[in-house]
Amino acid sequence: MTSETSRVEAFSDGVFAIAITLLILDVRLPSNIETGKLASALLKLWPSYLAFLTSFGTIGVMWMNHHRLFNLINRSDDGLIALNTLLLLGVTWVPFPTALLAQHLLGSDQYIPAALYSGSYVIIAIMFNVLWRYVVKRKLVVDHANVSAITRQYYFGPLFYLIALLIGFKNATACLVFNFLLVLYFALPPRFWRRD
Amino acid sequence: MTSETSRVEAFSDGVFAIAITLLILDVRLPSNIETGKLASALLKLWPSYLAFLTSFGTIGVMWMNHHRLFNLINRSDDGLIALNTLLLLGVTWVPFPTALLAQHLLGSDQYIPAALYSGSYVIIAIMFNVLWRYVVKRKLVVDHANVSAITRQYYFGPLFYLIALLIGFKNATACLVFNFLLVLYFALPPRFWRRD
Amino acid sequence: MTSETSRVEAFSDGVFAIAITLLILDVRLPSNIETGKLASALLKLWPSYLAFLTSFGTIGVMWMNHHRLFNLINRSDDGLIALNTLLLLGVTWVPFPTALLAQHLLGSDQYIPAALYSGSYVIIAIMFNVLWRYVVKRKLVVDHANVSAITRQYYFGPLFYLIALLIGFKNATACLVFNFLLVLYFALPPRFWRRD
Amino acid sequence: MTSETSRVEAFSDGVFAIAITLLILDVRLPSNIETGKLASALLKLWPSYLAFLTSFGTIGVMWMNHHRLFNLINRSDDGLIALNTLLLLGVTWVPFPTALLAQHLLGSDQYIPAALYSGSYVIIAIMFNVLWRYVVKRKLVVDHANVSAITRQYYFGPLFYLIALLIGFKNATACLVFNFLLVLYFALPPRFWRRD
Repeated sequence: MTSETSRVEAFSDGVFAIAITLLILDVRLPSNIETGKLASALLKLWPSYLAFLTSFGTIGVMWMNHHRLFNLINRSDDGLIALNTLLLLGVTWVPFPTALLAQHLLGSDQYIPAALYSGSYVIIAIMFNVLWRYVVKRKLVVDHANVSAITRQYYFGPLFYLIALLIGFKNATACLVFNFLLVLYFALPPRFWRRD
Repeated sequence: MTSETSRVEAFSDGVFAIAITLLILDVRLPSNIETGKLASALLKLWPSYLAFLTSFGTIGVMWMNHHRLFNLINRSDDGLIALNTLLLLGVTWVPFPTALLAQHLLGSDQYIPAALYSGSYVIIAIMFNVLWRYVVKRKLVVDHANVSAITRQYYFGPLFYLIALLIGFKNATACLVFNFLLVLYFALPPRFWRRD
Repeated sequence: MTSETSRVEAFSDGVFAIAITLLILDVRLPSNIETGKLASALLKLWPSYLAFLTSFGTIGVMWMNHHRLFNLINRSDDGLIALNTLLLLGVTWVPFPTALLAQHLLGSDQYIPAALYSGSYVIIAIMFNVLWRYVVKRKLVVDHANVSAITRQYYFGPLFYLIALLIGFKNATACLVFNFLLVLYFALPPRFWRRD
Repeated sequence: MTSETSRVEAFSDGVFAIAITLLILDVRLPSNIETGKLASALLKLWPSYLAFLTSFGTIGVMWMNHHRLFNLINRSDDGLIALNTLLLLGVTWVPFPTALLAQHLLGSDQYIPAALYSGSYVIIAIMFNVLWRYVVKRKLVVDHANVSAITRQYYFGPLFYLIALLIGFKNATACLVFNFLLVLYFALPPRFWRRD
């Protein structure tokens, strides 16, 4: 059974919007702050701000790519819905490693949350590749102009997050900053990656 | 009064999307973890991961079935809206038994959350049957080709979750794993269950 | 400036869907339950279940009425958007008195959360009346058949929740049960209230 | 690549709806209230009510302006999506300074959360200006009648929130009340600001 994609997009938009908004719930001061210590407590919270910004940007970029992808898809089938749900599973998962990384960014175990954080993005980036190949193979795509450009751009996703993962084994803060830079890279439109 | 179903679907999509995304809020480490104990604390959290995955999958499958169902429904009436709201009550409830089961999966009282978890799904599966019978009886369905196949598939829902419930009285982990396997079963498209 | 209502409905659907789904976050066991006490702890949580069910039903009925209302509205203007936002303020507020009532249902101060709970619904019911009168007066309504029936039904809303408020001063549980019965009353379609 | 704006609006509606509804999660009594102290505890919570009302109103007004803006926009491009995502970052951030201001409204450090609160709105107001100039410059706007009126109204946003910021350095409560008054100002439709 094939059908149009509007309700799949509506459900996906909902999940993206909620996951991206829930991130702020983990930016939180301890409740027992002494008088006069508020400013320093807010400054000490910088790992939470950086993790919030990076995960917001990453989910935002995922949504933009999902949006671009489904602009090219004109039909839906059961396989697409199942693969899209797996992708949304990844998106929904993001707030957990984000909170963990923010809390343990400077700890002696910092490589663990850094690896979990970047590892989650490696898997989501692979999911995007799997989803894209599926819709190309099943000819659910309406506009063939961008196919090879998108395929090429998507190759870089898992690779770059793998680099982030490796950085994370050395230094969690550097890993988080690298992830933030990747947000900027992926925010660039596909025409930057097309061979002219 | 009958009307088209688009706004019922939009509201339902919202509830499904939020319920499925809230599940991650209950995957959470204790805040007071000693240095060097982070890895083992993360490993000990496996009941939360398994419960998250299973409930995400189950709500995802419910959404897919809801999507398939409303693709076949071309009109809405007050009874459909009321029954759909009851179904959404079930979906909204899911995070509570999920968190309870994750927390007590290995406790001596494990049969209680396991029964509550599977029992909730039994009731939701019955609600799907009631909703489906209602739309068939009221002739709100546009495409009569799949009616009997769906009716037949829907029979199995309450039955399978009843089996999960019985397993839960023996072993909560086995119950949760069985529920995870049911996700795979229900993710299969209706053509698998049609007599050809 | 007048425009069609679809995006107002989409935003409203989002707020209704989130408010109704957040209710489950307040159904929660204390984390430090002794072995063998899980069953009794779950039974003792009945005020939370009853409050969850009643508020879910009430918000569900509000959504159904909002849906019926906007089915009759074919244009939007700035006043409608402002009044609708005020109505959504009421809907968003509901989880707070719900959690408060569940927690203090049997306490000596029970009349306070009961009054706050029913008082919130009185104000929301008045908001529905104000919104309805506005759209009738500004002729934003497409179908004049149901106007007087809806006007008549909406009269009862504030009145009934005022009765709930009075009951709350005597007994919070009776107040909550009365609110639950009101869910059933308002779930009935408008044709029950039309003079034939 | 340009495309229509419906999915950008759907995603934005989701983020606005969730951010506005999450605000209620921070209106919360301490759990250990003695018998007979419930009324006074509820009264003492007034900073939370005022902060909730003001932030709800402010996000509501932002949504209304976003709605008006996108009613005038008939095409989308990558730059618009990126700027809109930055705007949503601001909206998603709001619950954090709101909770902080409510908790420390009467403390000796009150100027800190007041400055953070109003400062966040200054930046969001600037974002609205940047977004608006972008769509005007890229000719993504369908209706040229309101362009100069909107441009003029948008000038006042950053200015007024800057005044709120300055008030916050003197008195956090006065700052919050001023922000509440700004809600009423911005709820007024653009025709109030048009030169006739």
